[in-house]
This record gives sequence, C-alpha cells and structure tokens, in this order.
Amino acid sequence: MTYCVGVLVNEGVILASDSRTHAGVDNFAQFCKMTVFERPGDRVIALLSSGGLAGTQAIISVLKQRAELDDGKPNLWTARTMFDVARVISDAMREIEERDSAWLKSSNLTFNASFIFGGQIRGEPVRLFRTYAETNFIEAERDTPFLQTGETKYGKPILDRVINATTTLEDAAKCVLVSFDSTMRSNLSVAMPIDLLCYQKDTFHAKQRRRLEPGDDYFTRLSGAWSEGVRRVFTELPKPKW
Amino acid sequence: MTYCVGVLVNEGVILASDSRTHAGVDNFAQFCKMTVFERPGDRVIALLSSGGLAGTQAIISVLKQRAELDDGKPNLWTARTMFDVARVISDAMREIEERDSAWLKSSNLTFNASFIFGGQIRGEPVRLFRTYAETNFIEAERDTPFLQTGETKYGKPILDRVINATTTLEDAAKCVLVSFDSTMRSNLSVAMPIDLLCYQKDTFHAKQRRRLEPGDDYFTRLSGAWSEGVRRVFTELPKPKW
Repeated sequence: MTYCVGVLVNEGVILASDSRTHAGVDNFAQFCKMTVFERPGDRVIALLSSGGLAGTQAIISVLKQRAELDDGKPNLWTARTMFDVARVISDAMREIEERDSAWLKSSNLTFNASFIFGGQIRGEPVRLFRTYAETNFIEAERDTPFLQTGETKYGKPILDRVINATTTLEDAAKCVLVSFDSTMRSNLSVAMPIDLLCYQKDTFHAKQRRRLEPGDDYFTRLSGAWSEGVRRVFTELPKPKW
Repeated sequence: MTYCVGVLVNEGVILASDSRTHAGVDNFAQFCKMTVFERPGDRVIALLSSGGLAGTQAIISVLKQRAELDDGKPNLWTARTMFDVARVISDAMREIEERDSAWLKSSNLTFNASFIFGGQIRGEPVRLFRTYAETNFIEAERDTPFLQTGETKYGKPILDRVINATTTLEDAAKCVLVSFDSTMRSNLSVAMPIDLLCYQKDTFHAKQRRRLEPGDDYFTRLSGAWSEGVRRVFTELPKPKW
C-alpha cells in the first residue's frame, strides 16, 4: 500500500508521501513516490504516486522524457495551467495503460496508478488535483481542501478535524505528519521515510522540502508530543454519566 | 456498514455499537446491534452484531430461543465459561449459515455475520472475544486489549494511542466514544444512536448501560471538548525545520 496526502490552504500547498512498496509481506522495498518539476520563478509541480510501481514509474518516465524532448506536444514545462498539467498526466497514464493493461489482465491484475499533484504556474493560483485509476481527475477546492490516496482511512479523522483553508502552512505540515504517524502506527504497509514538500504561494520555488528518515529527530519529538497531548486532552474530557 | 468496539481493561470491559444498517445509500435504517444476556449475580454477556442484518438477527434469535428452551444443549444461560459461550455463538452462526448460504449464493452474496462479545461468568475473569465470518473466533488479551468490527480504520488510531490494560474504565469509555465520533465524521455508513455498555468486573450486573441518541448532550460536549483539545495540542507541537 501507500499513503499520499495533498493539502491546499490559503498560504500554499503541502504534499507528502511515504516510501513503502510491497507485493506481499515478504516482498517490500523503499521507493521515493514524490517527483518535483521545478523551474524557479515560473513553476513548481509536485507529483505523488500511488499504485503498482511498474505503472507509476513508467508514467513518471514518460512525463520526464516528453518534457526533455520538447517536441511541440504539451508537456509539464510548457503546460500553461495546472488543468493542462492534469491532462498531460492523464494522457501519460492512458499511454501506459494502453501498453500494459492486456498483459496485466492475463494475470488478473488491473492497471491502478493514481497521482496527487499540486503546485503553481505563474499567472495562476496554487492548485491541487488527484487522478483516479480511470485516468480522470478532480481538483481540491475550499469545501474539500485535502486529497488522499492509498491507505487513507487511519489518517483522515485528524485532517477532518484540523484542516481548512485558513490553516497555516506550518500547522498543515504538522497535521499531515501526525496523519502519517497515525497511519504508520496502525498499518504496516505504510512506512518512512516520508517525503514532505511545503510550497508557499507565489514563491515559484520548492525550498521547503525534506525527507524524514526513520528515527528523524523532529518527527520523533512531534509524535511524542502529539501522543502526550492527546492523553492529556483525554484526562480533561467530561466524564460519562450513567 | 457498522462500527463495533470491545475494550478489555483491568477494571472490566466496554462494549459499544452504532445503529446504522444500509443496503445502498437510499436504503438505510436504524437497528440496535447490542444484545445483553444478564442474570444478576451470575453472568453478564453482551453481543455486538456486524454483517448482514438477516443473518445477525437470525443468529441472535437462535441464541435467545435456545436459552429459553433449555433443552439440555449448551446455551448462553448454562455455558460454564466465556469460551463455551463463544462455541455456542459459533454454533448458532453455523446453523444459520448452513440454512442460508446456498440461497445467498444465487445472488452472489456471502454469509458475513461477525460478533464481538464480552462479559463475565461467575468463577472466571472478564473476557472479550470476536468471531469471524468463518465462525471461528479469537480472544482479546493483554497485548491486544481491543477488538473492532465493521468500519474499523478511522477510529483505530485513537484506540492505539490510548488503550492499554491499565486504562480506567471511564477513560476507556471516553476513548471509545471519541473513536465513534472520528468514524462518524469520516464515514456516512456509521451513525448514532450509539449503544454503550460499561461492565465493571465482579459486579455481575450491567448497570452502566446507555443509548446515546443524536444530539445527546454528553456526546456533544465530549466531541466539542475533544476537537478543541486536539486543536490546542496542535498549536503546541514543535515547528517543522526545513
């Protein structure tokens, strides 16, 4: 499994992904699921990959090759808007699905890639999208400011309680990390390192980006402070009446 | 869907169930999923039902009829231990499955009942079990003091963080209700009223039992205090470094 989250707030966007891939409990590995396309001053686009690794890697390679080739067809460097970016990604998904799906079908597998992607292209506000396995896509908006893929349920309640458009980027980053902590405690298929990008609007530069390795000092302190804080809140909750 | 939780702590056991059943979003209804067998001074056994309503209702009816009939076969009033109770429940499940499964199969349905049940029979400690749809069962123990069925993921992180054998019954009850609150906020298939039983060991009397209806004053205060407390903890968490 996988856990990826994108959070859109007034100040910008947070994107985060775990690094575990697996095919059964005795075949797991570590792969980075975050890919960033950045041209300082012009655009920052970050993608988070979920689904079969062969499919998602191939789609990312198609996106990179097409962007390098610059053959006049739309690509991630030339897309004028984030909506056009979404169509470029969707088209790359369709290309790989058309190539692979018949071969997967012979083993009763389905093509199941999906992506969360967000960022900003000069001339537009910050935007956040997700594609579905069917290669269509949706955009986050004020009423639903976060999007998740993979093992989404464990970490959703804390996002539901904390995130809204006015949440600061800093609080949103903390909330996303607590959401990962909750997920990793309850589910073995999601694991560190966590790749975290915090993009501040109108900077056109992905300067707040880091990888949190297992045992990361900040993450350990955050996790401990959260657990302790939650237990403290419990002791203060009103007592049930019978 | 459904959400049921049983929590075993040194002081006793908490059992709680929601009340929503549904077959599609336009066919939902309210049914009590908690059944209590109580003989003061001798035993308290509470069952929480998950799965297809036709199956779980039939199993509960078989258990009740067999207990009333008292035909010499093991039943919930004569079972000597909670392990024997588990076998009585498992046998009732098998009886209904054998009766119904071929008929369900013709509509591509499977028999999917499962139960969480806990309580105490004089001469034994408090015990907590769950059956699987396959009619076998497990018992909670110190390392894993809570069992869930139904829509389990949203409400698991808070149980993981708070519950251990030394948690007081009162804190366990609060934690279970917060777990329900988190689940109901994130998932429409779980809904109030919540049936809650808090059994204190060696009392052989289910005196702390209540139904929390929508808008319940205590639940509303608990939910509000929890949300507010969580947000306060957030503001105190260490800031991320970039």
